[in-house]
This record gives sequence, structure tokens and C-alpha cells, in this order.
Amino acid sequence: MMDGSMEPGLLLIPGPVPLPRQVREELAKPAAPHYGDAWVKAHSETREMLRYTWSAPDAHVFPIAGPGHAALEAIGYTFLRPGDRIVVVSNGFFGDRTHEVLLTHRVKADLVSSPWGSAPDLAALRTALKTPAKAVVVVHNETSTGVTNSLDPIVEAAHAADAIVIVDAVSSLGGLPLPFAKLGIDAGFSASQKCIAAPAGIAPVAVSRSLWESTDPKSVEGWYLNLYTWDRYEREWGDWHPTPTTISSNLFYAFHRALKLLREEGLEARFARHAKVAARLRAGLAELGFRPVGPSAILSNTVGCFSPPPGVDPARLVRRLKDEHDIYISGGLGPLRGKTIRVGTMGTQADPESIDWLLKAVRASV
Amino acid sequence: MMDGSMEPGLLLIPGPVPLPRQVREELAKPAAPHYGDAWVKAHSETREMLRYTWSAPDAHVFPIAGPGHAALEAIGYTFLRPGDRIVVVSNGFFGDRTHEVLLTHRVKADLVSSPWGSAPDLAALRTALKTPAKAVVVVHNETSTGVTNSLDPIVEAAHAADAIVIVDAVSSLGGLPLPFAKLGIDAGFSASQKCIAAPAGIAPVAVSRSLWESTDPKSVEGWYLNLYTWDRYEREWGDWHPTPTTISSNLFYAFHRALKLLREEGLEARFARHAKVAARLRAGLAELGFRPVGPSAILSNTVGCFSPPPGVDPARLVRRLKDEHDIYISGGLGPLRGKTIRVGTMGTQADPESIDWLLKAVRASV
Repeated sequence: MMDGSMEPGLLLIPGPVPLPRQVREELAKPAAPHYGDAWVKAHSETREMLRYTWSAPDAHVFPIAGPGHAALEAIGYTFLRPGDRIVVVSNGFFGDRTHEVLLTHRVKADLVSSPWGSAPDLAALRTALKTPAKAVVVVHNETSTGVTNSLDPIVEAAHAADAIVIVDAVSSLGGLPLPFAKLGIDAGFSASQKCIAAPAGIAPVAVSRSLWESTDPKSVEGWYLNLYTWDRYEREWGDWHPTPTTISSNLFYAFHRALKLLREEGLEARFARHAKVAARLRAGLAELGFRPVGPSAILSNTVGCFSPPPGVDPARLVRRLKDEHDIYISGGLGPLRGKTIRVGTMGTQADPESIDWLLKAVRASV
Repeated sequence: MMDGSMEPGLLLIPGPVPLPRQVREELAKPAAPHYGDAWVKAHSETREMLRYTWSAPDAHVFPIAGPGHAALEAIGYTFLRPGDRIVVVSNGFFGDRTHEVLLTHRVKADLVSSPWGSAPDLAALRTALKTPAKAVVVVHNETSTGVTNSLDPIVEAAHAADAIVIVDAVSSLGGLPLPFAKLGIDAGFSASQKCIAAPAGIAPVAVSRSLWESTDPKSVEGWYLNLYTWDRYEREWGDWHPTPTTISSNLFYAFHRALKLLREEGLEARFARHAKVAARLRAGLAELGFRPVGPSAILSNTVGCFSPPPGVDPARLVRRLKDEHDIYISGGLGPLRGKTIRVGTMGTQADPESIDWLLKAVRASV
């Protein structure tokens, strides 16, 4: 896996991740038409592979051209309305960001916060849901703190209160178990450059059949981020041009190739690989005196956030790893800025050799 | 220029266009971070080159990650409000599409139509503007008919009626003269995969200083397609992460490289090259009995739309060029479907050798 990452060094930031050789080969191909037989086949296979990746055999899935934020807003525009009350569960930067983004849609958004690095506050969520709400929105894996939020109790609480559940799976889809259909999630979105190990620029969206069928397409504003536009082109132009707009063929075929690699490996094997490599990272850093920010029961297998031992300045460590070892990791965000380091173990990064390389370099730098 | 297009044959559809070798090399590089010093430098150079490309030295410019349609809606969300009256000038598929898209923003949109292939109906526009309107929206170059709409009289009529002018420059920016500042255009958008000859996926937006400063950012809904979000990240995170979201570094550096090639060639030389090659295509096809759809005074230099001579079926010709000569051109859209062929002469396609190759193949096929 490492051949893709040699040139700029070892990219262990929490996404984008190094691209597998086969994915880079797709990117490097000459531009091809965004319609026609080859395109229709790749598009249909992509949708089938997305249903597999989401563990959602009968969901509506869309490979939106754009970043994860565009997909969050596609769900917002399509299923929320100005004035709707929603509840956003937040325990980190991306939970807060979700709240900030959805507020611009003129919804009444209540924030159920808990400290960064801790688990969601389920008691506060249940209290918040005593007032009727259209939706509960939650980040599955907090890229800012390295904590994975358990979705079961959130879905249960939301559905008990007749609220739909919208899940940000940006840094979890394809790396952490996320049984969309079994859990009864209503809508979710992710991004291509994390556990799927494709270039940034395609955001997979999944919508449950029940949410899809209970929404009136005529009530939706906007065109590109309106999922019913995507559905219409699939149905009406599906035999030659199944998307509403021009998608980069290089990007799309690279995404398609990354999903094929994912399917060949299999989700269970992929989850096990992420778990194993993340444990290796935690154990190695613990030996050097680093402590994860969250409690051990909820630590993420796709991104680690660690406080360094006394006397080690995280910003200086990040810089030394880059300058002296050509290894890229990240610092903390928000209140954790200047206090922590963050290491991605997503997709191609979930590789024992990469982690050993990093650990050796950290050992030499502290 | 041809080396980039050899693998899938010769791509002469009206965009995407074959990628120059240097642009493909950027695409093929390992994934790099979407922040940090190199990124900030490339982002700042990109914005400067976009101001050059738009001939708009003091405009606000944004390289939106997404297709041209996302940029159209970014302008819609940022500067139009539900209930605003706008006038859409249409003489082709993309004019009609613009009307369709903006209607989903709950504006009152009047359509000033003229037949496909003809010029805009200026008298009807002036009549429509007797009723107050917030904006006039026009497609500069109709990719569906191969006609370039003169912008001067449209801007003049709009400004005389106190309406702003929004221009779709998807198939003109970088290929046809478009003096944004001199004409007094208020907002415009384009797409990377046409005359700029980059991969699809980045949509350049330009906004005049006067429109920018007369809009209240608080009145804008939405986050990602809200241009004030882009502006805020440039200002507040500009020293390390000047965009609101993760943009594919492969795509962005490829776009940056394409703009450098454009700047090295120079806009005037580029316009002359497009004009020369388009004339060669028209002359060559005229000899074979093909006639352009529009009158000669308004024919486009970036895309040609032609009716074949009697007895030649356009769909069959498109298929034979592909199957027997590995050359990709397009058929007509809407009412021209099955009646015309369309040939792109954008960016890398504006190359005499490519056109001679096509003409030879057409000669062998009719």
C-alpha cells in the first residue's frame, strides 16, 4: 500500500489518505466522457457498491460530486425545512460545525453538547426530545477527538420520539461498522478521501426508503443539492447520462476503483484491519507516554487524538516529523489546538508498516 | 497537445476536453494535504490567475469545488432571494436549464426566449425589463447550438433597468473574449473542464465589488454554496486553510497547472487560436456539405453545431466516428437531438491537427 504515499512522505493526517496505486492509475488516465455505455456501467456498479458499503441493500444512494459538507447540505435541503426543530448531538469540532451549517438553513437547532473527548450526553438528548423534533443529527466518528459515538442508543431515542436520524459518517464509512439498514438510520453521508481511500470530491449519500417515500419532492428547494434532482436524472437519463451534471471522469473512475478494492477486501476484513492497526498505534504511543483524549471504551479505530507526555510540545512534534522524517500528522482543533496530535488510520493508512514507521520517528523526536 | 488524448481516442465532445500532459501529471501525483504552506501559495496564485482569466482585476473570485451547476446555484443562493423577479434570456438548452434551476429557488423567473440557434431577443428583453427585476441571467456561449451571445447590449439593457447581470461562462471562459470588469458584469461562473482544459470539478466564480458590497451576508441562506462562507475562510483561515472544506489536492493542483498554461499562452493568443481553429472546422465541414445551425455573425469559436448534408444521419455519423476512428463528438440536444452534430474546439481541442484528423474521418464516413 505504501507505494502511493512515497513522494510527499507518509500522509498520516486524518484524511485525505494516500491513494492506492490502482486508484492513482485511474486518476492519471486521459479525460473520458461523463456519459455513454462505459459511464452508465461504472455508475450503476458504483451505486451497487455504495449500497454494500453502507450495509443498506435497499437505500437510495447517490455519489454526489462535492465535499462531505455539500452532502450534509443536500440532506438538509432535501429533508429539512426552515422552521423545523432539530437536535444536534455534539462532542467535538465536527458536531459543532454540523450545528453551524444547519443553522444557516433557518432550522431551530438545539445543541446537545458534551465535553470534547467524552461520549454523547444521552440523558440530555432524551430530555431535548421531549419537545417534538424533526431530526437528530450526529457525527458517527469525531475526527477532532478520535472518539466513535455509539449510534444504537441515539437512533433508539430519536425514533422513540418520532425524529429521523441523520448521520455524518465522513471518517467512518468503510472503516468502522455502520449497519445503516439494521440500525434504522434515515440518512447519512460520507466523503471519498477518508476510509474509502479515493481522492476527495465525491460524497456518498444514503437515504432510507421510508424517509425517501414520505417526502414530497415538490417541497424541496434548489436543484443540485436536491436529491430528487439526482434521482430524476437516474430515472430519466439513466441509459446514457445518469447524473444531473458533468462529473470528472478521472475522479469518478478513481472512486469506482477504490470501492472495488473495498469490496474485494470485504467490510468485515476492513473493519478488523482498522481495529488492529489502531490498537498498534495506541499501544506504541502509550509506551512513549502519550494518552488518548477519550476514554478507552469509545476510542476510534480510524483516527487517534493523543496528549503528549510532559515536556513534549505537540506543534513542535508535528513540525519535526514533517521536516526530519517526511511524515505528516495533524495537530488538534478548537480547544485541543496546541495540546494534542492527531493521527489517521483510515483506508491505506491502516497499515502496520506505516504505524511502525511513525512510531520509530516519534521515538526519535521526543 | 495530442499526447493527452491518445488513449481513449480523440475527445472532441463539447467538454470535457483532453487534458494537457502537465495537467495529467498533477492529477497522478500522490494525495497531498489540503492546507499548509504549499496549499496557501497555490490557492493564492489560483485566485490571482482567475482574476486574470476573468479580466476582472478587482473582482471577488472563488474556485468552488463542484460542477458549473453548483456555481450557478452559489450565485443564486448568495444574491437572489425567494420572490425576486429575474429575467432569464434563453436561446438554447443551457438557457432553458438555467431557468429550470433558478425556478427551484422560488424566484419569479420570466423567460425571454428566441429560437435555438438564433440570437437573443433584445426587444423582448427590453420589454420584460419595463417591470422591475433584480437580475438578468444569460448564457454567454450556448453549448447546445454553437452560438455566442453578445453580452454588451444585454448588460446595457439590464443596467439601464437597474438589474444586475449574471453570466454563465461555462463554455467561454478562457476561450472567448469576456471582459468581465469592462462590460460591468455583476457575477459569472464557469467550469474547469471546458476552455481551461482542466479536469471537471472546479467551478470558477467571479463577483463584482459593487454586488459584493451591496449584499448583506446575513441575508444569505446555506453554508457551502454561500459565497460569504468562502470569503470568511479566506480571511480567517487564510494563512493555513483558506477554503471551507476539503478539496481534492490532485484536482486543485491540476486546475492550478491548467491556469498556469493559460496564463503562459496569454488570453489574446488563446482567443486567436480558438478563432482560427473554429474557422478551420467550419470551412472543412462546409466543403462536405455541413451547415452551422446559427447565422455566421454569431457562431461560436469554442463549439460548433452543424446540420449534416441530406442523406447523412447524425447519430450514425457520431457512432461511426467513434467505432471506426476512435473520435468522440456529440449529437444535438433537445429539439436538435438526432438532427445535428456538435464538435468542441475548446482548450486542447483548439488544435489544427485534431481538426484535420476529424475532417479526414468525416470525409471517410459520409
